[in-house]
Amino acid sequence: MPVIHVGCELAYEVTAPTSFLFNVAAAKTPFQTVLQENIEVSPNVGYAEIQLGTEGNRIFRLRTDPGPLALIYWANVEMNPIVVNSPNIEENVHQLLPNEVLPFLNPSRYCESDRLVQLVWQTFGHLSPGYSRVQAICNWTYEQLNYQPGSTDERTSACDVLIQRTGICRDYAHLAIALCRAMCIPARYVAGYAVGLEPPDFHGFFEAYLGSRWYLFDATRMAPVDGLVRIGTGRDAADASFATIIGAATMTRQVVWANRGANASPPQNDSCAAVSTV
Amino acid sequence: MPVIHVGCELAYEVTAPTSFLFNVAAAKTPFQTVLQENIEVSPNVGYAEIQLGTEGNRIFRLRTDPGPLALIYWANVEMNPIVVNSPNIEENVHQLLPNEVLPFLNPSRYCESDRLVQLVWQTFGHLSPGYSRVQAICNWTYEQLNYQPGSTDERTSACDVLIQRTGICRDYAHLAIALCRAMCIPARYVAGYAVGLEPPDFHGFFEAYLGSRWYLFDATRMAPVDGLVRIGTGRDAADASFATIIGAATMTRQVVWANRGANASPPQNDSCAAVSTV
Amino acid sequence: MPVIHVGCELAYEVTAPTSFLFNVAAAKTPFQTVLQENIEVSPNVGYAEIQLGTEGNRIFRLRTDPGPLALIYWANVEMNPIVVNSPNIEENVHQLLPNEVLPFLNPSRYCESDRLVQLVWQTFGHLSPGYSRVQAICNWTYEQLNYQPGSTDERTSACDVLIQRTGICRDYAHLAIALCRAMCIPARYVAGYAVGLEPPDFHGFFEAYLGSRWYLFDATRMAPVDGLVRIGTGRDAADASFATIIGAATMTRQVVWANRGANASPPQNDSCAAVSTV
Amino acid sequence: MPVIHVGCELAYEVTAPTSFLFNVAAAKTPFQTVLQENIEVSPNVGYAEIQLGTEGNRIFRLRTDPGPLALIYWANVEMNPIVVNSPNIEENVHQLLPNEVLPFLNPSRYCESDRLVQLVWQTFGHLSPGYSRVQAICNWTYEQLNYQPGSTDERTSACDVLIQRTGICRDYAHLAIALCRAMCIPARYVAGYAVGLEPPDFHGFFEAYLGSRWYLFDATRMAPVDGLVRIGTGRDAADASFATIIGAATMTRQVVWANRGANASPPQNDSCAAVSTV
Repeated sequence: MPVIHVGCELAYEVTAPTSFLFNVAAAKTPFQTVLQENIEVSPNVGYAEIQLGTEGNRIFRLRTDPGPLALIYWANVEMNPIVVNSPNIEENVHQLLPNEVLPFLNPSRYCESDRLVQLVWQTFGHLSPGYSRVQAICNWTYEQLNYQPGSTDERTSACDVLIQRTGICRDYAHLAIALCRAMCIPARYVAGYAVGLEPPDFHGFFEAYLGSRWYLFDATRMAPVDGLVRIGTGRDAADASFATIIGAATMTRQVVWANRGANASPPQNDSCAAVSTV
Repeated sequence: MPVIHVGCELAYEVTAPTSFLFNVAAAKTPFQTVLQENIEVSPNVGYAEIQLGTEGNRIFRLRTDPGPLALIYWANVEMNPIVVNSPNIEENVHQLLPNEVLPFLNPSRYCESDRLVQLVWQTFGHLSPGYSRVQAICNWTYEQLNYQPGSTDERTSACDVLIQRTGICRDYAHLAIALCRAMCIPARYVAGYAVGLEPPDFHGFFEAYLGSRWYLFDATRMAPVDGLVRIGTGRDAADASFATIIGAATMTRQVVWANRGANASPPQNDSCAAVSTV
Repeated sequence: MPVIHVGCELAYEVTAPTSFLFNVAAAKTPFQTVLQENIEVSPNVGYAEIQLGTEGNRIFRLRTDPGPLALIYWANVEMNPIVVNSPNIEENVHQLLPNEVLPFLNPSRYCESDRLVQLVWQTFGHLSPGYSRVQAICNWTYEQLNYQPGSTDERTSACDVLIQRTGICRDYAHLAIALCRAMCIPARYVAGYAVGLEPPDFHGFFEAYLGSRWYLFDATRMAPVDGLVRIGTGRDAADASFATIIGAATMTRQVVWANRGANASPPQNDSCAAVSTV
Repeated sequence: MPVIHVGCELAYEVTAPTSFLFNVAAAKTPFQTVLQENIEVSPNVGYAEIQLGTEGNRIFRLRTDPGPLALIYWANVEMNPIVVNSPNIEENVHQLLPNEVLPFLNPSRYCESDRLVQLVWQTFGHLSPGYSRVQAICNWTYEQLNYQPGSTDERTSACDVLIQRTGICRDYAHLAIALCRAMCIPARYVAGYAVGLEPPDFHGFFEAYLGSRWYLFDATRMAPVDGLVRIGTGRDAADASFATIIGAATMTRQVVWANRGANASPPQNDSCAAVSTV
């Protein structure tokens, strides 16, 4: 089965005692197995690996004093995705949805599905329910938006994006999620690594619940679905930020990679296709 | 030339010394002539007729003490509209726009055109400029929105409407105005009376500047363009409210009418098709 | 220990096959014990009692065909609240917060805490951390807002409320929750019954995590904290709606009650202080 | 009488035929006299000086083809301001306001005064009406906000600022204007040059109508009121942008200066305290 080597290097200048929650470790799921992984934190302040949220996001939790802080994480992840082509999968009528997916119908910070009911029925109501309708939502999102780094920020919600028609991966995911929920299709946000992303970065995509399980979608069309390695899952990006910082710290370096094939260490910097230093 | 008889009856319970600005008188323009008109205010507190705004809206300004207040206004208005069918009118390139129309390119309270630039070029950019493109904006507005009284209020802006896809006449006008301005077509709000409105009420529509003059549009399709009698003009409904109240007053009665043919008095209540008592 | 008798009667006219999630049952917690309870649904379409969300809200889930639907629920609940006076309880520094409360620091649909960081530190940053600071947030919320039924709706968020300064119980709770989270105090929404509410209705209040447990607060000051009977808990009102309706139904009747002392049946209508028929 | 030397240098890379409206010339008013002024546009594409808006903003209007475009403007302006200390000026009751100031009570794109009525009466309602109350609004604005360049953009309105509590000069002005209008005090935006601004830039402040004329206020406290040279006036910044660009152009240089004392030319670059190249 195919293996994807993923990882990241994050560095900060910390200026006050600060708590970090790093959500960068590859998730352990039936569809992806972490063969090897390694995390280094320097200085060696120690960290706890905890699980957060209903989906069990793996978080490295640590606290540090002022000074520089760096984290390097990498993993070889064996992928066993169910990749579906031209599927013929129905939506569930509401009364058949499993209890545990019902909360993913609720609006959330960045996915104000309650405001979009009229729009979705008008735009997608005539389509056959099921996988193909979610695919139509993805296509519409892709066509309506322009991928424009810098045009949105951490306050931007699905409704904002619908007005301004620009955004980045997380905005695409938020809009598609909000549209799904407004049609009573449970949908949730997935943060991950993605093969082939240009420039390399953390990626945001989403899942919709159809038939009897969650299906992965990427409205940006920036990475193949079989190249997506899950990190965290949540209602929206508020639940799956790669770094939550309580205190005072400035990022000085961020490098992210995802390549097909196993590897026993991070890529050498000089072979790393893109290094974004914030 | 055709005559339209318009008018309204407004009543309030005033609970503190209060100033009113009533913007209900038919405008005097090259396209409509006020043949007769009558205004009665009771109790007889007196009023000044003033002109407000760059377009010279006719305002009855008065001040009253606590107690009931009623205003009855009616007019016979001779209409001389230029009604254009399948017109072949160009937009002006920006440098040819007359100075005085340039402010109607600016965003305003209810028409946040600055946020819609991406959307308009994506949606209407491929169409030929001119009258037909504004008509396309009207058609799109009509198709995207559902006319739903009570779904919006006096805080609702074009961007809100674009999200929720419901509204009333003023919301339709605001959205169409915002879309025009975002394409560099000067556009402004018109409040008026409208023949055939069901139920009878004040109406909101808009004008776009094309070729060498303003053209009237009604995105709601609720009234024929030759049945629209202008009351006030402004950047948006904030400039053309039928009643601005500074103080404390509760509306107890609102009746509005607009019928083809002259008439020397308000319609008898029992023959008035619709009476809305708020 | 004191007993509170709570209950509600809800009726709908259903016009299409419709799923309901009723979140009206008193929660079972260490602080409140359901001694007796009764639910009647008519017509007798059957229902499942399920648990939803991380806090295990008790939901009656059912599906019905067009026609009238009525639900009557009542319970006698023995209360064992920890009511704290002039407490001297510290906030936790972030690194000591238990993992399971961390998600309640995230912004949510109606509590955009991410936008309020500057405001909270400026307004409450000089106060001693702990119970008294959350109390100060409650007091500020109470003082800044005017309780005004009808001034908000199901789209209204904490930021909207902060602008318009009016709202009802759920708006008070949302604003206080958002302020707490912006200060890194975990906070969550609680829906419930409340003794002494005038007029009787479902109530919304909130909890903040301090020291080593959740503490209850009611920024509206409309009910004594020892008279609050929990129904549901969640990130905000999106997670704790008393009725989620998927389909088409119009409410025709809503009666809610909460009285001190056990009772073996709903109050007689003629002795029910307030009956609100929507 | 004192003279202030003001000016700016703006440069663009134009990539398509583009219209510019430059609103950088010092206004000619009873309170400031333009002794000398000079404008150079290169390449020499010609320009028209037009007057825009009800306050007669002086605009340089031009059109250019792709390529570089630069504008240098400077003026010596004799100042005759009425600077008032501890004034005892009343607000006008509404019915005494001159007709022409009434439109400055309406909400506008960046000053949503209609949403702030509750807040202003609650916060400032107990204060004596008049100059001192507007001063209190300025003080409150100053105290609530943090001056933070980069925290807002051209979409940011008074309500946004009220939530996030950060902004720059135009945001301070918008918030203060919105608060004034919500109290029925006519208020308008003024763009200008300001002596002592650090770093030098265009400045935004506002006027309130009190007694029988407009009074100048600067909620940022960044420049002395007698060092403010008016460029343009309008409902908000939408009416008084220093450059409106219809077409495609990227700014490559912006230098702004305002110094006490006449000068016959722009300051030498090497003596120019701050040069911001965008």
